[in-house]
Amino acid sequence: MAVGNVPFPDMPVVPGVKLAAVDAGIKDNGRNDVVLFELVEGARVAGVFTQNAFCAAPVTVCKQNLSDEAPAIRYLLVNSGNANACTGEQGMADALATCVEVARVAGVKPEQVLPFSTGVIGELLPMPKILPVIDSAYKLLASDGWADAGQGIMTTDTRAKGACSQFEYEGQSVVVAGISKGSGMIEPNMATMLGYIATNANIAQSILEQLSKQAANESFNRITVDGDTSTNDSCILIATGQTSLPEIESIDSPLYQQLSAAVIDIHRQLAKAIVTDGEGATKFVTIEVTGGGTEQECIDVAYSVARSPLVKTALFASDPNWGRIVAAIGYAGVAELDANKVTVHLGDVLIVENGGCAASYTEEQGQAVMDEENISIHIDLSRGDFSDRVWTTDLSHEYVTINAEYRS
Amino acid sequence: MAVGNVPFPDMPVVPGVKLAAVDAGIKDNGRNDVVLFELVEGARVAGVFTQNAFCAAPVTVCKQNLSDEAPAIRYLLVNSGNANACTGEQGMADALATCVEVARVAGVKPEQVLPFSTGVIGELLPMPKILPVIDSAYKLLASDGWADAGQGIMTTDTRAKGACSQFEYEGQSVVVAGISKGSGMIEPNMATMLGYIATNANIAQSILEQLSKQAANESFNRITVDGDTSTNDSCILIATGQTSLPEIESIDSPLYQQLSAAVIDIHRQLAKAIVTDGEGATKFVTIEVTGGGTEQECIDVAYSVARSPLVKTALFASDPNWGRIVAAIGYAGVAELDANKVTVHLGDVLIVENGGCAASYTEEQGQAVMDEENISIHIDLSRGDFSDRVWTTDLSHEYVTINAEYRS
Repeated sequence: MAVGNVPFPDMPVVPGVKLAAVDAGIKDNGRNDVVLFELVEGARVAGVFTQNAFCAAPVTVCKQNLSDEAPAIRYLLVNSGNANACTGEQGMADALATCVEVARVAGVKPEQVLPFSTGVIGELLPMPKILPVIDSAYKLLASDGWADAGQGIMTTDTRAKGACSQFEYEGQSVVVAGISKGSGMIEPNMATMLGYIATNANIAQSILEQLSKQAANESFNRITVDGDTSTNDSCILIATGQTSLPEIESIDSPLYQQLSAAVIDIHRQLAKAIVTDGEGATKFVTIEVTGGGTEQECIDVAYSVARSPLVKTALFASDPNWGRIVAAIGYAGVAELDANKVTVHLGDVLIVENGGCAASYTEEQGQAVMDEENISIHIDLSRGDFSDRVWTTDLSHEYVTINAEYRS
Repeated sequence: MAVGNVPFPDMPVVPGVKLAAVDAGIKDNGRNDVVLFELVEGARVAGVFTQNAFCAAPVTVCKQNLSDEAPAIRYLLVNSGNANACTGEQGMADALATCVEVARVAGVKPEQVLPFSTGVIGELLPMPKILPVIDSAYKLLASDGWADAGQGIMTTDTRAKGACSQFEYEGQSVVVAGISKGSGMIEPNMATMLGYIATNANIAQSILEQLSKQAANESFNRITVDGDTSTNDSCILIATGQTSLPEIESIDSPLYQQLSAAVIDIHRQLAKAIVTDGEGATKFVTIEVTGGGTEQECIDVAYSVARSPLVKTALFASDPNWGRIVAAIGYAGVAELDANKVTVHLGDVLIVENGGCAASYTEEQGQAVMDEENISIHIDLSRGDFSDRVWTTDLSHEYVTINAEYRS
């Protein structure tokens, strides 16, 4: 199940990026499960990774290979179907071995390869399946491989997720394109998600890193499906520098303004695509909190509502059960929250004011909003000028079915 | 659904406490939904209440009537089927009006009555149903009314919850008995729960209050079903002083040692009874964390695992999916946690060590533990001497069904 019908877009070529996907047989479903990215020499790469203390072996290798001393990244290798997480020393050895094989095939150093894995936790990577297909993937590399790559990184996803945009700047075409995967274990810092976003712009390394953090924070770190944070989350931003525009060296540059807006927008589209494809999702829910005394309390309230199983099951039932929303606001831990000043809108309908149900509210109004697939909940705390928002889903029978059956 | 078969115990008389339950028609199921407690003159009362900022009107009245200046409590009035929460000024007026009616019928002051409500949030109390039955309840008051009272406070509970114990002290019989309700919205500080525990011992007010806090903290504040905290949680401890033993004025007194152990044990039994009757529960799960650097990090790790929908659905599926447990430990936010030092036991089976699956572990061992109804997960962080534990359930289809259908 998934919310709406979101086709994979016609992805443009991002000059300097080639991709390929092959079937190594890690997943039993006959779908591609190994994806290789090739980046042109001179491309720059930044990444944001899971905060989970049990981070997977490939995450550790990525962080090492993205450190200042490491040579420039030329290849990204992704496998789906196995997370290589909680696999101890053998897991590290296996992640490194995949880098060595890519390096051998492509004639680069192993430190120029970033490895990624997603899927079952706690099982060793099936190396005899993965290593032999790397050469095949290398030979298939093509600049129009985005759709295949989007498919190849899926696990419980029901559809591939892609987003792209283009704009002209001083006669040059600037492209931003990306793919993501994830549908359960979706929660900030970060989701069980992989995201790869590439642009042909030329950005100084420090600015690229800053943009990667900001964009992830405003997108993948504002979504939740089930409150679980995976061991493998990674979001990669690539700038190939394949235009004749000058390098962006300052965030004040007009090109950076346009580019960063596009990059953040693509991140958000990819993050929202994960939510609408959330495990068992039947609703896409935006929870906006305004009037907060701090940004953190806005986030706390938004997540308290977004995570509440009672709110989520009410959303699944299309039940305008505003009492559950109010209860979740109440236990978000905001110090000295004055319940009588809080207002809650469901869509355009005022449902809560003065500590209770709004006088103007009728059940029919609430029901009309809840019957929609896309639902917005707007909470005003009336105690300051801060605001924030998160995106989430409902909690359905299918979520339970998927997670009681899928070994992740 | 509920875990195991837990009959309501044969409850002893607690001298100084009388109870009655009547059907006011608030719930449509023909069950009693209004419960009245009468306490003998001289009884002392302490209470612990929800931290929810949107606390219900009766909670506000209880806190006022338990303040130092208020006269001694003589009656408790509980209704199920309607929480009188998020009901604004009218809700306060209604809660007070029920106290006035009890006071009128019983010939006490309204401030000597504590009101409690549990059930649907956001609807006004049906006063025309409640007020007329108070007189009937008053006339039915009897010292053997515990079982009826246990039934009368139920909402989505599938069974009434009671616990009791007795011991001899200097030739006198000391009794501790209590009832509780709650099965969803179960989470510390506190659950959607009501608890009433009474003893015939004679305890100084300050010590009674301290014991009430401690006992709630070691019981109702260590359980979670779904992570939701209600607007109405209340836990009341009553000491009627109906023995000829002297008043307990110090926590060092030998009688206090025995009594407090019994009181805490009864709180724990009542809290665990809520978990085993958790909405849709098929498993009773104890999560014990040892080796913590602080008590808080033990609690954080225990709740991170206990709340994880992925862990809970794996428990529902009887799937020894230790990777999900490890992932939940990893995102509990414990600073500088060394994943390689963490061990996890499922029952007696070592499943995780050295950052991955234990070498000795076999799937059959894990499966055998998971097939049980009562499951213990023991996590050792190997970084200190603190420990703590929480009790929880799995997440089943029935949880979704109940909460997609029940308007709470």
